Amino acid sequence: MDLSTKVKSDIEIAQEATIKPIKDIAQKLDLHDEELEPYGHYKAKISLDVLKRLETKKDGKVILVTSINPTPAGEGKSTITVGLGQGFSKIGKKAMIAMREPSLGPTMGIKGGATGGGYSQVIPMEDINLHFTGDFHAITTANNTLSALIDNHIHQGNQLQIDVRRVVWKRVVDLNDRALRQVIIGLGGPIQGIPREDGFDITVASEIMAIFCLATDLQDLKKRLSRIVVAYNIHREPVTVADLGAEGALTLLLKDALKPNLVQTLEHTPALIHGGPFANIAHGCNSVIATKMAAKLADYVITEGGFGADLGAEKFLNIKARFAGIKPEAVVIVATIRALKMHGGVAKSDLTQENVEALTKGLSNLQKHIETIQAFGLPFVVAINQFVTDSKSEVDKIEKWCADNSYPVALAQVWEKGGEGGVELAKKVLDVIKKVENNFAPLYDVSSSIEDKVKTIAKTVYGAKDVEFSTKAQKQMVDFEKFGWNNLPICMAKTQYSLSDNPTLLGRPTDFTITIREFRPSIGAGFIVALTGDVMTMPGLPKVPAALKMDVNEEGKAVGLF
Amino acid sequence: MDLSTKVKSDIEIAQEATIKPIKDIAQKLDLHDEELEPYGHYKAKISLDVLKRLETKKDGKVILVTSINPTPAGEGKSTITVGLGQGFSKIGKKAMIAMREPSLGPTMGIKGGATGGGYSQVIPMEDINLHFTGDFHAITTANNTLSALIDNHIHQGNQLQIDVRRVVWKRVVDLNDRALRQVIIGLGGPIQGIPREDGFDITVASEIMAIFCLATDLQDLKKRLSRIVVAYNIHREPVTVADLGAEGALTLLLKDALKPNLVQTLEHTPALIHGGPFANIAHGCNSVIATKMAAKLADYVITEGGFGADLGAEKFLNIKARFAGIKPEAVVIVATIRALKMHGGVAKSDLTQENVEALTKGLSNLQKHIETIQAFGLPFVVAINQFVTDSKSEVDKIEKWCADNSYPVALAQVWEKGGEGGVELAKKVLDVIKKVENNFAPLYDVSSSIEDKVKTIAKTVYGAKDVEFSTKAQKQMVDFEKFGWNNLPICMAKTQYSLSDNPTLLGRPTDFTITIREFRPSIGAGFIVALTGDVMTMPGLPKVPAALKMDVNEEGKAVGLF
Repeated sequence: MDLSTKVKSDIEIAQEATIKPIKDIAQKLDLHDEELEPYGHYKAKISLDVLKRLETKKDGKVILVTSINPTPAGEGKSTITVGLGQGFSKIGKKAMIAMREPSLGPTMGIKGGATGGGYSQVIPMEDINLHFTGDFHAITTANNTLSALIDNHIHQGNQLQIDVRRVVWKRVVDLNDRALRQVIIGLGGPIQGIPREDGFDITVASEIMAIFCLATDLQDLKKRLSRIVVAYNIHREPVTVADLGAEGALTLLLKDALKPNLVQTLEHTPALIHGGPFANIAHGCNSVIATKMAAKLADYVITEGGFGADLGAEKFLNIKARFAGIKPEAVVIVATIRALKMHGGVAKSDLTQENVEALTKGLSNLQKHIETIQAFGLPFVVAINQFVTDSKSEVDKIEKWCADNSYPVALAQVWEKGGEGGVELAKKVLDVIKKVENNFAPLYDVSSSIEDKVKTIAKTVYGAKDVEFSTKAQKQMVDFEKFGWNNLPICMAKTQYSLSDNPTLLGRPTDFTITIREFRPSIGAGFIVALTGDVMTMPGLPKVPAALKMDVNEEGKAVGLF
Repeated sequence: MDLSTKVKSDIEIAQEATIKPIKDIAQKLDLHDEELEPYGHYKAKISLDVLKRLETKKDGKVILVTSINPTPAGEGKSTITVGLGQGFSKIGKKAMIAMREPSLGPTMGIKGGATGGGYSQVIPMEDINLHFTGDFHAITTANNTLSALIDNHIHQGNQLQIDVRRVVWKRVVDLNDRALRQVIIGLGGPIQGIPREDGFDITVASEIMAIFCLATDLQDLKKRLSRIVVAYNIHREPVTVADLGAEGALTLLLKDALKPNLVQTLEHTPALIHGGPFANIAHGCNSVIATKMAAKLADYVITEGGFGADLGAEKFLNIKARFAGIKPEAVVIVATIRALKMHGGVAKSDLTQENVEALTKGLSNLQKHIETIQAFGLPFVVAINQFVTDSKSEVDKIEKWCADNSYPVALAQVWEKGGEGGVELAKKVLDVIKKVENNFAPLYDVSSSIEDKVKTIAKTVYGAKDVEFSTKAQKQMVDFEKFGWNNLPICMAKTQYSLSDNPTLLGRPTDFTITIREFRPSIGAGFIVALTGDVMTMPGLPKVPAALKMDVNEEGKAVGLF
């Protein structure tokens, strides 16, 4: 990445791009006219009927992009995902990208987004980063309709005997709004409802977002929604959406949102951008429906998981792939020399200086993630996302290290060169798919105990010595067995910055214990969340929010967005 | 309206209708391809460039539909608006409808909507009544982004010295959620922000909704947004959006929503459905941009104001028409025999029985609204929205009363017969436009004092004897003059059920006083709200919310919606 001031910003590159009408992109995918629902000229929703029409067609190959533990230096996982898709197109393969939708909160908060960067972006980036086709608004509305129905039920007589101290369903906004984290609602006397403690999460943390991304069709969506546990009654038994009878209305509110959104990259590679659950208290992948649809429409599907391989890839493989019956063909593990140096102990301000020693030390982090992907039995390629500040000695070092260990590696210059910069990576991926044996299997059996499942993840994926369960967590495991919730996969909520549960331990920490503080049942989504510390489900705004630089110019164009 | 069980429901009629591709509707309006932004196949947004292209074209004639004071018997103002548009089409006129977008809260709460009824509906009704093109979600997001920026400003050092007890900007959701009316936010210690009292309104009550509906273009939108008063500082001076520097981001969030939405009626008459502010604390009309665009695209524009003529028409004429430079050609005053009988003292359960005496008594309500429209110098037609329960003697009575008073009247059967049932009304409207002198002028000069403006409305429109101002309201008038807010029109917040400020006084109350409890400055919208009593800005859900009957069937179609 050229950091000189002459470099164009992402939004400038995106706005100068030639964008094709979305119906042209759809045509290349052999979509029928009536299967495309245009949203303006450059975005469209695709009817779920496509999945029925192509039911017997052989699936394309799914390639998962993941990374080392993220650092403030930036890894560029989304940029590689987009660039790799463009790279596949460049070498004549029918490829498609399947990514998450950005959340508006971080967009308005901190400069940054989830549409790639440089010459590897999905466009129209302003639309995708703002309201897009309204999916997140539909999820916010469904979430808060449920909240209104719960409080109304209590207010109107509370037939289900909900314990107002044990309502676990929170309201959401798709914004960074710390003042809503802990609130008291229902004040003002008897006609304003029952006062109780509540809180708001950001929309991407809603269980409905996770459900939306794991549902296979509308009826499956409804079934999952009906299972959501919203509260406990005075006998401490779970109260569900089905008990309230709200699953029909929630499904209706999500009916159109459930159709995947088609857009294109700067080089016109088709992309489905759909859903976007948090990668801590949820599984952090785009929707199952989009990934499966992409596999029907293209020969190669490039998709990603949130955060590093310890969270994103682990959950993609143990939760999403398992539920959806997806067998990935290969995994791309993204790293940058800058980030590896940070894992080796270099401060962010010193990253422009060559430091082969720190790089060598930091490679231990990459090493651990490689071992994790190997534990899943999957072929992989290491992708080095190149920056202009990377020195030749540093690049040589990493290439030699990969060669010594027989790790397939490719340099990627997708930010600067778009698809051309991803050709080497695409070829290497094709190569490992062809030559390396694929023995993919999830790491644990869902029928094993909650304790065993957590221990498997902590030891195999994080490299932990042991796992401790708090008294509360131990009690919960007993309750969950009673409620019949023990046969579900585990969704770990852990810091993304470290393999351990301590965000300051970079590189490859050893000899550490993971502490499970508490569990949260996401019965609709179909997993048990294991919390290893404080998990932020509502971010705050920085001192100078990005929003304050945003504007619309005289021609009606977005400015200041990124 | 045939109330027998054999009658089809609105959603059944709407779903069985033949709907034309929206591009065919656009073609009839001579819209250029690039001016149409399709949202699926049956909805589209229209680029604001149309207004520039047709700047010099002569405007079509605007016809305002209003009604008597609403009663639980139902007046069917929206149904008449749609049916009249269809009636104009039937007699070969190029007509277009301009209406408000429905709010999701009431849709999920009480059976009902704002898309007309029977054979006079705008379609696709499920889409319009649910998320539509996301305009309200964009307004909700802009409103709550501003809230997050205010609380973040206070948390990050409060440079503007905002008095946390005097933050007047509230958060919103587009739902009926009584538990959010009064809340305490910012709990949980120093990193969660500053604790303070807050409350949520329904989205249609947001000042941003009113601004959105009065803005003439993007730059005017930004200017209005920047003027919003969000709080007072410790010196009791107003703090605005411009002080926070947030107007650019808010404009960006509303950029696409500002384009009017094109749909069609059951008989393919084009309709612009855009914006929907409350008719109590706001002005209750669809967007200025949509009304003006409709006037450029058609020869006759049928539009409506919220509630009865004392609120909706008064505000349309004194606020919207004044700001936008719209001169209505005629007003249609809708009444039903059922509702007039209620104004004459009949209980809802007795409405099916003939009662000419009560009808005669109830006509006093219609009489007052006719006088109001006459005071504005406008031609009008009384429209009787016919029900099968109306007896011949009752119909004869009302026709004779109109004849005796020389009031133009037409019977409308638009619910049952669609446009055919609106032909008589359409012809009568054309007739009065041609023959009756139009001396339209707003009722007051904006430069007169706040007190005088309120008195003019109360006396001329409501028939009040006098107006009392509370001590608080009197103090506010002094403050507002100091802040330079006295040259703005007044937006009355009054019960819709009575001409007075007492909802139980039906018919035509006399000898009553209107009490102004408090003012609220809507400086962005450009008016001063005068509150005459408790105004509900966040409705609650009923014991059995409509949402609980909603569902999606096996074919993916909406059911239980209306």
